[in-house]
Amino acid sequence: MRLSLAEIADLVKGEIIGDEQIDITGVNSLDKAEKGDISFFYDTRYSDQAGNTRASALVVSEKLQNFPGSQIIAPDPRLAYALLAGLFAPPVPRFHGISDKAFLHETSSTGNNVSIYPMVYAGKDTVIGDNVILFPGVFIGDRVKIGNNSVLYANVSVMQDCLIGANMVIHSGCVIGSDGFGYVPGEQGNVKIPQLGNVQIDDDVEIGANSTIDRAAHGTTHIKKGVKIDNLVQIAHNVVVGENSILVAQAGISGSVDIGKNVIIGGQVGIRDHVSIGDHAQVGSGSGVHKSLDEGEAALGNPTLPPRLWLKTRALIERLPDMNKKIRELEKRMKETKKKE
Amino acid sequence: MRLSLAEIADLVKGEIIGDEQIDITGVNSLDKAEKGDISFFYDTRYSDQAGNTRASALVVSEKLQNFPGSQIIAPDPRLAYALLAGLFAPPVPRFHGISDKAFLHETSSTGNNVSIYPMVYAGKDTVIGDNVILFPGVFIGDRVKIGNNSVLYANVSVMQDCLIGANMVIHSGCVIGSDGFGYVPGEQGNVKIPQLGNVQIDDDVEIGANSTIDRAAHGTTHIKKGVKIDNLVQIAHNVVVGENSILVAQAGISGSVDIGKNVIIGGQVGIRDHVSIGDHAQVGSGSGVHKSLDEGEAALGNPTLPPRLWLKTRALIERLPDMNKKIRELEKRMKETKKKE
Amino acid sequence: MRLSLAEIADLVKGEIIGDEQIDITGVNSLDKAEKGDISFFYDTRYSDQAGNTRASALVVSEKLQNFPGSQIIAPDPRLAYALLAGLFAPPVPRFHGISDKAFLHETSSTGNNVSIYPMVYAGKDTVIGDNVILFPGVFIGDRVKIGNNSVLYANVSVMQDCLIGANMVIHSGCVIGSDGFGYVPGEQGNVKIPQLGNVQIDDDVEIGANSTIDRAAHGTTHIKKGVKIDNLVQIAHNVVVGENSILVAQAGISGSVDIGKNVIIGGQVGIRDHVSIGDHAQVGSGSGVHKSLDEGEAALGNPTLPPRLWLKTRALIERLPDMNKKIRELEKRMKETKKKE
Repeated sequence: MRLSLAEIADLVKGEIIGDEQIDITGVNSLDKAEKGDISFFYDTRYSDQAGNTRASALVVSEKLQNFPGSQIIAPDPRLAYALLAGLFAPPVPRFHGISDKAFLHETSSTGNNVSIYPMVYAGKDTVIGDNVILFPGVFIGDRVKIGNNSVLYANVSVMQDCLIGANMVIHSGCVIGSDGFGYVPGEQGNVKIPQLGNVQIDDDVEIGANSTIDRAAHGTTHIKKGVKIDNLVQIAHNVVVGENSILVAQAGISGSVDIGKNVIIGGQVGIRDHVSIGDHAQVGSGSGVHKSLDEGEAALGNPTLPPRLWLKTRALIERLPDMNKKIRELEKRMKETKKKE
Repeated sequence: MRLSLAEIADLVKGEIIGDEQIDITGVNSLDKAEKGDISFFYDTRYSDQAGNTRASALVVSEKLQNFPGSQIIAPDPRLAYALLAGLFAPPVPRFHGISDKAFLHETSSTGNNVSIYPMVYAGKDTVIGDNVILFPGVFIGDRVKIGNNSVLYANVSVMQDCLIGANMVIHSGCVIGSDGFGYVPGEQGNVKIPQLGNVQIDDDVEIGANSTIDRAAHGTTHIKKGVKIDNLVQIAHNVVVGENSILVAQAGISGSVDIGKNVIIGGQVGIRDHVSIGDHAQVGSGSGVHKSLDEGEAALGNPTLPPRLWLKTRALIERLPDMNKKIRELEKRMKETKKKE
Repeated sequence: MRLSLAEIADLVKGEIIGDEQIDITGVNSLDKAEKGDISFFYDTRYSDQAGNTRASALVVSEKLQNFPGSQIIAPDPRLAYALLAGLFAPPVPRFHGISDKAFLHETSSTGNNVSIYPMVYAGKDTVIGDNVILFPGVFIGDRVKIGNNSVLYANVSVMQDCLIGANMVIHSGCVIGSDGFGYVPGEQGNVKIPQLGNVQIDDDVEIGANSTIDRAAHGTTHIKKGVKIDNLVQIAHNVVVGENSILVAQAGISGSVDIGKNVIIGGQVGIRDHVSIGDHAQVGSGSGVHKSLDEGEAALGNPTLPPRLWLKTRALIERLPDMNKKIRELEKRMKETKKKE
């Protein structure tokens, strides 16, 4: 990979100060960069490193006086780092073509330039898009569709009838489309409510290792465009997660929860069933959400409180022994006052 | 699938009003049902839909005046739905016979009408019952027995010597029979206590995706008949779960916990080791159980409290700043009173 | 396995009372032991059983009067049990050699006496040490190294460039080296920060079923010698876990957390990012750690408190309704006092 500084400036929406014809061949941290590398300065703790870096160019938010090379003034150097490091990152390791140790059903179809590793299974009427990479142990159930450029890492299971978008990354051990959890108590024990829907995942979603997304009882469990899900997250049947929302590790989302756009759900959060979470809401890690949250609302604790109230109450919980002592002293003095009367 | 209304009434223990010879060929919701379908009315929010449905028959709890077709008056229409939808649901997708891309040890035995997908492994002296379906990536350790009609979805691992009942459903990625977690601190570090027992799972159990059930240190980790376990649940060594109990997603059950019959354990609950949970007890989601619960006891919070007390204390936690202010005011007034004396 | 009592005494650092030439052929509990077995007495509840056991020898901490056979007086009979039971435990079930249903890349190398089950995949330039056992469904990414005597159970995924030590046990469904979770918000949605580091796991580590350990953004997520990790644990990018530390089931460790040596992290604990946990610290189950802990510090609750304070405050939380009532009564009496003045 080789890009001119002008191309890079274009990409990160920045302006060049200095020579815009330099060729950039790598991305590195300030202290490790060499000639040909571009580096990034957005944390004032590293201003010494920025002055001493051997990078050929720097992305900065304001012109840096003590760096002699070319600079790109960009609105968000950290975003610039993510974009450029992504471009220069090593590609996902590919298997050449379709392994003869994989099993693709005769009615399965594959696009151009796919990598199907050994020990992959794809069932009836599956449709696998262009450039898709399926690692060993991937299971693709009947009628599943996978969009272009998606990567499913090792031992991922996608059950029948689920729809996987384009540019997806599904990390190892994920299960998409397992049955939702629903039973009715009967005389002989719990009777299963059949789970007849599916899971639909739109483009540009990433799902962490060993996460589970259940199929809907009816209709669709729907993960929308750009959602990012961490490891060991549980998403129950009929949940909807809106565009670009983020779910951190070990969060658990109960049935029929409706999560809006650009929401952030912290690690180990639990959300009870049928609750709505408004767009841009944020739930702190470890919280238990028992009621719906409005657009932009922040919440913390179990059950959740507004963060400021939560901080106040948490501080007072530590002081409960003190409060209790004061109450007892007040009672004692009150008695003494009474006696004197 | 085609059943007469009489057969259906028998199944759901209901009485027919109208023509009992109608043939039913499907199950559907009130708004989507067509001729030949049976539908269900148990939620008054949908009474308009019940009046307008095109279903050939309805299951109701009381006779519905505004529906002209046949009706079955049944004690629990929701249970009727689960039973009938289960009958009419599409069958689990099957592989025809035993794939030559599977590996069954020569000492392994399989019953009639099994489906062994490609990439299945079954070890020495394994016994696989009639009609069992093993999806790709299933691992069956040495001497494991699997009862009739059980389904193990993709990438399930059942370790050596574990016993799996009949009519089981084990969702993708589950691990049954991994080692329990036990160490003794030694001079050179933690010394493993060997885990020499197994896991026994009785009939009619369902286990969600990516859940883990550890083998006993000695003896058996025992999941009894009719238990339903959700996704990402952890069950430690030597746990016993009684008949028809329900464990919701991400619950964690520590070693040697004894859970009774018909218990409900909410999502993300943690139960400490050696605790007993009585029959019919219920633990609310997100709770931490530090001591045993009696038969029928309900518990909430961390550590758990009786639900009514929990609700009261939670409400007061929000009012702690107010309580604290009142204490300070009382102290101030008390001082003023003292001064006046 | 057959050891003389003298050999065993040497192993457990004990002294023999009685015949030191007895041959021991098994380890068993007091009530089940037969001639040839050695048993262990360290729990006074079982002193009757100790008097009646048919074991040929006992390991005890003090000489037992009512047992007629040979005894080993050892400093820690429970540790002696773990050591000896480990020696006498049945070996891990092995596949004979390398299965022709496995796929090892032509540039992969394997040591002496390996067991490679069917349906294993090992990528380019992988190095697999002596006596390693890889169960079915194991995925070994490019350039991964696995030390001698390590066991990877079914459906474990180790992604490219990760380093796995010697004498490791990785239970089924674990994922080592999935991408860390990092994004920068951009105009078009979340932009992934590429995860360019790896995971290094040192010798003698054991990892429970379906746990996940993410690769570092840069550098290494490092699990040091002797660490023991339970099931369904999440370890994020750039975490360091010090020697012999223990992480119980469903714990979640956020990015860049630094955990010291001999630390114990309870089940379902969450630790926020960039926090340090000192050597020998202990965190109670279900806790939420929001700030760093010192060496030897114990912590409980969410957020964590010192255990004694936590116990006090928890007791007072139950008494909040009572405290609130007292405050109201004080206010009422205060008013009455005022009136009288």
